Amino acid sequence: MKVVKIGLLGLGTVGGGTVNVLAKNAEDISRRSNCQIIVSSASARDITRTRICDTDTIQLTTNSQEVVNDPDIQIVVELMGGEEPAKSLILQALANGKHVVTANKALIANHGNELFAEAVKNNVTLAYEAAIAGGIPIVKAMREGLSANSIEWLAGIINGTGNFILTEMRDKGSAFDDVLAQAQELGYAEADPEYDVEGIDAAHKLCILASLAFGMPLNFERVYTEGISKVTPLDVTYAEELGYRIKHLGVAKKAGNGVEMRVHPTLIPEKRLIANVDGVMNAVVVKGNAVGTTLYYGPGAGAEATASAVIADIVDICRQLGAPSDHAVPALGFSSDQLNELPILPIEEITSAYYLRLSVEDKPGVMAAMTKILADNGISIEAVLQKEPEQHGANAQVILLTDSVLEKSLITALQQIESLDSINQPAVRIRVESLQ
Amino acid sequence: MKVVKIGLLGLGTVGGGTVNVLAKNAEDISRRSNCQIIVSSASARDITRTRICDTDTIQLTTNSQEVVNDPDIQIVVELMGGEEPAKSLILQALANGKHVVTANKALIANHGNELFAEAVKNNVTLAYEAAIAGGIPIVKAMREGLSANSIEWLAGIINGTGNFILTEMRDKGSAFDDVLAQAQELGYAEADPEYDVEGIDAAHKLCILASLAFGMPLNFERVYTEGISKVTPLDVTYAEELGYRIKHLGVAKKAGNGVEMRVHPTLIPEKRLIANVDGVMNAVVVKGNAVGTTLYYGPGAGAEATASAVIADIVDICRQLGAPSDHAVPALGFSSDQLNELPILPIEEITSAYYLRLSVEDKPGVMAAMTKILADNGISIEAVLQKEPEQHGANAQVILLTDSVLEKSLITALQQIESLDSINQPAVRIRVESLQ
Repeated sequence: MKVVKIGLLGLGTVGGGTVNVLAKNAEDISRRSNCQIIVSSASARDITRTRICDTDTIQLTTNSQEVVNDPDIQIVVELMGGEEPAKSLILQALANGKHVVTANKALIANHGNELFAEAVKNNVTLAYEAAIAGGIPIVKAMREGLSANSIEWLAGIINGTGNFILTEMRDKGSAFDDVLAQAQELGYAEADPEYDVEGIDAAHKLCILASLAFGMPLNFERVYTEGISKVTPLDVTYAEELGYRIKHLGVAKKAGNGVEMRVHPTLIPEKRLIANVDGVMNAVVVKGNAVGTTLYYGPGAGAEATASAVIADIVDICRQLGAPSDHAVPALGFSSDQLNELPILPIEEITSAYYLRLSVEDKPGVMAAMTKILADNGISIEAVLQKEPEQHGANAQVILLTDSVLEKSLITALQQIESLDSINQPAVRIRVESLQ
Repeated sequence: MKVVKIGLLGLGTVGGGTVNVLAKNAEDISRRSNCQIIVSSASARDITRTRICDTDTIQLTTNSQEVVNDPDIQIVVELMGGEEPAKSLILQALANGKHVVTANKALIANHGNELFAEAVKNNVTLAYEAAIAGGIPIVKAMREGLSANSIEWLAGIINGTGNFILTEMRDKGSAFDDVLAQAQELGYAEADPEYDVEGIDAAHKLCILASLAFGMPLNFERVYTEGISKVTPLDVTYAEELGYRIKHLGVAKKAGNGVEMRVHPTLIPEKRLIANVDGVMNAVVVKGNAVGTTLYYGPGAGAEATASAVIADIVDICRQLGAPSDHAVPALGFSSDQLNELPILPIEEITSAYYLRLSVEDKPGVMAAMTKILADNGISIEAVLQKEPEQHGANAQVILLTDSVLEKSLITALQQIESLDSINQPAVRIRVESLQ
């Protein structure tokens, strides 16, 4: 049996999980890969620290160069995170003719185009299944399982922290800040939660999914990103009354000759399977023009769930070791010379349905004025919910669900509505996706 | 760009769908496979019949031999169904050094061991993604996406007809026979529905999934199979009152040193995602010891959904054309010389929780006698529901949910319960899976 030596860059949660899973499932992994996979070395900042895995047979070093330059190592696994030194180390490993596996979504989203080109140049593979949705084999599904399809759209819950917070807000009626504090205590949210709750982490993943879907280079800076910190328990409740759940979705959609890429809180009909994906779990819905609607669900994080994806990439590489590199699946599913830039629509140009909540003075004629403005702007109303003020003289709440409309038309209409005398607060506006 | 010629055996629904999808998505498929895929010939019983696809550029023949022996054809796609002549034609194609793609679950379940061996012998691929769960890339997920895992269990809704019937029974409170008649009218069920409603079709697929999960040869004849024709609206309702849905599940599970393989109606907690997979849709839950619980959902049938899986296999083969065959993913995910026979447990030896419904005379002491028998057999009760008789003198209904128990212990207890004077009908017994 072939022996394949791998070197790890980083030996934290996912690195340790990878070592543990390779050990506990060694027999099944060998039976599948026809290789004996050995972690021969690992770099870490502090090699004296206690690890979650056994390191007796692993050569530990603080010098990552030793790993990427070790001639015995065939696969370098980058699990240190962050942009540098991860990027330089991966480039060097690729230049050294090593295959690379990474779980680093920020790196792929920001520098994937350059990194993939370097892999092609050196006839090696750069694999990144673990960068999106943890243990769910969504990269494989999109670039191989659905290769017969033109992808029409995809939508994913791709940040577990955000989904945990929204799930708790719904289940317990809690406010965002309270649940965030609880998530931090449980270790689900970082001390600095910005990446998770403001949607940056989800935007990294969405950008990669969109390129896999549409065969275009990565364009992270073009993803419209809106977090969940402004979602209120009131809107969660009203959404529920209307038959919807609020989820933090990444959406990528073909629209005319262009593409929409956006991350934002979204109302989803409660009957959709993805509306029932709760807690820290992830799920991605992909609509292909042949297969129809498919969904992939699983844990989006965790040491061994992420290790599952890392090792799947390692096994794929093992199966291809020795074969000419032009037989490997291309990094984004489309041959590297077949990627096309597509126009990415600015957020004003997207089409969506909307949930609108307006605080209005409890006077006759307000509803008539609002609905006239919407009609004048060509916007149809799907549902209305009117909540009388809790005390005399307070504002009433009017909740409207619109039909699909160009975002800029909606903004124009809202500006007119907000200038009405009886409206004295900005409207709450959340996009709605039917996902069918 | 490489030109790859394929030949179809069968040009019905899936064959026509495959031609249509290859045509409409030709550009994306070429960009992904780096090949131009051409359907050069197709065999059909009646070549004068009107087809759902354009056949102008396809050489039609009634003689399937012409397809499997055509030296220009590199990939033979078998979509005729049934065991013969499909099996002989595939064997001949493999012997001729052609790769084969099939959607034929009965053939793989019954003859896969022989067919896979013939493919290995001839250094070609026999691919069958479309045989299980239509367009869902579940074969790929199991043999590649989850290759890091030892699979603990899997459970699937893998027959759309059965799921449609159970969904309608729940939504409308209808009886099995009425919904079956409706399904036949809608074209969801065959004139002879036995394969679907008695679980044979699901058993074919389950047998393949179990081999993919546990790395063992196919053992179709060892799958315990029970259909849905005896499920009553009463049990659907009581299950719902207890917080469960009844689904027709295929279950494969590691149990000690052995394996459980079974297809039967099953109560599932309504909160599980798979309990909410309705109508003709399919879904498979896979529990890996690293990744945890994952789920794959999509259309289990239909011309283009199935074609999506067929073409994904074709693209995989195109990507590997010219590479040495030992780099291809093995048919069952494990190297062909690494498959191990595992003991398959007879149904009496499986462990499951149970839903029991007993018609009892409405007399004091009956419940005490029943629960004593269960306790004496070491069976714990999780929940009880007692329904008073609708008219005086009629039987009461007692519904019990048990804890997990060895099936033969439950059968012993039930025999004792059924011999009680106040019990004058056999118990209704449905297995319960928590799927966590």
